[in-house]
Amino acid sequence: MKHDMPYKLMLSESEMPTQWYNVRADMKTKPAPLLNPATGKPVTLDELSKVFCRELAKQELDDVSPYIDIPEEILNFYHMYRPSPLVRAYFLEKALDTPAHIFYKFEGNNTSGSHKLNSAIAQTYYAKKEGLTGVTTETGAGQWGTALAMACAYFGLECDVFMVKCSYEQKPFRREVIRTFGANVTPSPSDTTAVGRDILKRFPGTSGSLGCAISEAVESAITRPGRRYVLGSVLSQVLLHQSIIGLETMAALKKYGVKADIIIGCAGGGSNLGGLISPFMGEKLRGEADYKFIAVEPASCPSLTRGKYVYDYCDTGKVCPLAKMYTLGSGFIPSSNHAGGLRYHGMSSVVSELYDEKLIEARSVEQTSVFQAARDFARVEGTLPAPESSHAIRVAIDEAIRCRETGEAKNIVFGLTGTGFFDMTAYQKFNDGVMSDYIPTDEEIARSLAETPKIG
Amino acid sequence: MKHDMPYKLMLSESEMPTQWYNVRADMKTKPAPLLNPATGKPVTLDELSKVFCRELAKQELDDVSPYIDIPEEILNFYHMYRPSPLVRAYFLEKALDTPAHIFYKFEGNNTSGSHKLNSAIAQTYYAKKEGLTGVTTETGAGQWGTALAMACAYFGLECDVFMVKCSYEQKPFRREVIRTFGANVTPSPSDTTAVGRDILKRFPGTSGSLGCAISEAVESAITRPGRRYVLGSVLSQVLLHQSIIGLETMAALKKYGVKADIIIGCAGGGSNLGGLISPFMGEKLRGEADYKFIAVEPASCPSLTRGKYVYDYCDTGKVCPLAKMYTLGSGFIPSSNHAGGLRYHGMSSVVSELYDEKLIEARSVEQTSVFQAARDFARVEGTLPAPESSHAIRVAIDEAIRCRETGEAKNIVFGLTGTGFFDMTAYQKFNDGVMSDYIPTDEEIARSLAETPKIG
Repeated sequence: MKHDMPYKLMLSESEMPTQWYNVRADMKTKPAPLLNPATGKPVTLDELSKVFCRELAKQELDDVSPYIDIPEEILNFYHMYRPSPLVRAYFLEKALDTPAHIFYKFEGNNTSGSHKLNSAIAQTYYAKKEGLTGVTTETGAGQWGTALAMACAYFGLECDVFMVKCSYEQKPFRREVIRTFGANVTPSPSDTTAVGRDILKRFPGTSGSLGCAISEAVESAITRPGRRYVLGSVLSQVLLHQSIIGLETMAALKKYGVKADIIIGCAGGGSNLGGLISPFMGEKLRGEADYKFIAVEPASCPSLTRGKYVYDYCDTGKVCPLAKMYTLGSGFIPSSNHAGGLRYHGMSSVVSELYDEKLIEARSVEQTSVFQAARDFARVEGTLPAPESSHAIRVAIDEAIRCRETGEAKNIVFGLTGTGFFDMTAYQKFNDGVMSDYIPTDEEIARSLAETPKIG
Repeated sequence: MKHDMPYKLMLSESEMPTQWYNVRADMKTKPAPLLNPATGKPVTLDELSKVFCRELAKQELDDVSPYIDIPEEILNFYHMYRPSPLVRAYFLEKALDTPAHIFYKFEGNNTSGSHKLNSAIAQTYYAKKEGLTGVTTETGAGQWGTALAMACAYFGLECDVFMVKCSYEQKPFRREVIRTFGANVTPSPSDTTAVGRDILKRFPGTSGSLGCAISEAVESAITRPGRRYVLGSVLSQVLLHQSIIGLETMAALKKYGVKADIIIGCAGGGSNLGGLISPFMGEKLRGEADYKFIAVEPASCPSLTRGKYVYDYCDTGKVCPLAKMYTLGSGFIPSSNHAGGLRYHGMSSVVSELYDEKLIEARSVEQTSVFQAARDFARVEGTLPAPESSHAIRVAIDEAIRCRETGEAKNIVFGLTGTGFFDMTAYQKFNDGVMSDYIPTDEEIARSLAETPKIG
């Protein structure tokens, strides 16, 4: 095929970003502050430092510094898997017969299989620097747990992962990748924590839940010396670390003289979307350029398109600070039929504020059409996408088809967050034609929203 | 970390090779010809064309042309995943505290997870060009089946994969990747072939074998119009296609001014090793440069280090041409305890001849030490290697440790053929400390060698 630019728009090492970009600095209306659930007042640095490392707590609260230097040790680690490829999807364009130019930033080219490693390495670095001995977290699908295990192996930190019991049993391969990197994996609920023992006593046969795993991880972290809890999405610090995705994308597009028109990302907690769009949003906020941003969420867990913008609990255990965000209510649980990640009830407060200001559009898509896009993409571009990432593929394809109809040669950029190697059970359902869609009723959403706290 | 060259020694698109290199052209003693088992005489082009496409049959017999143009359609497809990265293993060097410089050519950066795609795309291209409607093959571990399914999806060819029944059942994820790319997967033995029906009748409860799957695939291919059988290793045509690995490696090393001292590859059928070393071996054969080549095989299936260099059957069904090769006898079956691939009883006739002329060294390694190397490598370099690839890692680490002892700053290059995402059952055994080693006895090997044909 004739092509006017390379298939992979790579940056050389010297062209790689050396600072993260903090989009909050350019926002006129800042994201609403986290609130202490006990006092109803904004959390202080000291309060937050009991859960997170102090440097990370600072980043969480910093909405004024536009750029933050990436520590040298993290830049070193980046060499393992960054820059990630920005791929011109010539094969997909040809298959769709579209005049659009499609680009995707592929974050699955590392063993954790997703973009989660970008924040895992940052969070473990600060933990190490602060002299901690280890970190504790929970994992559902397992990508975050894997990323954290890799980062801890690199810095020689202990790593404890509470893995939802049904995932622990049904996804033994993910579990073994985590163990191979030296982390301890505990099925949750477990008898290693008070909250776990209590739940086991009350529900002896339970297969666990993410909410319970979070509660166990937080308890385990704050009751052990030299430990902190870490979280892979939603937080503003995570969006900051993930801005490396957008910064590399922007640098590569500029290198090859491309101006993006539409930028698309899947949205669960918002870390990938926020990271991808941050620097472009900065240009938009500063009036330097305009872009259309599209957040894509599953119809089965539609926090942006059907949720409410209110203060809510971040965890089902209600122990973490309250955040103002688009939410379906902390008691909302997506149908078990739902195959991918993107199961979180709320959305990053940064993404929520930008969406509320209509700077981002949102679309919800159904999972059968998502897997159709995933399969079609795999067959022409040769990469098997994660179900989460495939939400973005679905809308990128839709937009490219629209361009075919209008004849517009738009530049469409989307985030391909990860690979689907550990999601073959879902693919099997799709291949067998037994995958179905699920959309929560208005009543279901109203019921879980009714339990949001009366604050703010 | 300070580094005098990039972590990834990448080629630009314009620097990518456009011809394959055929090492047989530079060999003074050519590999012994394939023999027709019925006549005992060298197979002719016409005979071979009944099994393979004519162009591939020509490549199989061509031991004089040093360079063969890579067709444009294949060069196009390469853009999907090539050039593959040549990585300077700075992290591993640091962990080993070695003065050696370690490089690895990583072929796992594509959805099939291994180098097999290099030959799959070539074989399907020629099948398409010859007007065939599809190809048929067998797969054990599943990497070749996945690669072939990807290539067939690209060219719009039908693809039938006979998958050894126990793998079909125990590796459902591999099977689903293959199905996602649109191929049909049949557990073998099956009732779709005469040979399958016969075996099912005689052994109703059998879980299948690679030998049986090959027999079914060959029968299925030659009894259906518009079909040919394809094979992912051992053949000289496969080594030709895999020379792209070595050509890219050589181009990247030259670009960065590095002269390799030691080149290491794992060896099952020999396609990866042969592909990696081919152009370097060409320089050695032509007296232009010297290199030390090391083939690494599992102690449980030691065809080079403990086999005999004789004519033997290539398949347990004894229907394919006879090849002169280092072999353990076509009835040799590695212990089921053996975790990785590299289970083939024989070795590429090209590699065999080079080894017999002492142009290549060979070492056998035990699987527990292989998985130790795999784990250590994953933890510092961030890539989870396939068990097969980890044989090469083991010896690369051993050589780097030797350099630490002697103080020599040798340039060590090894082939990292693939990723281990679908091998987590083996990793689990290792993580649980229940992996053991197995070395066949002299009597076992003598017994299977006794059945080699009395020819040549």
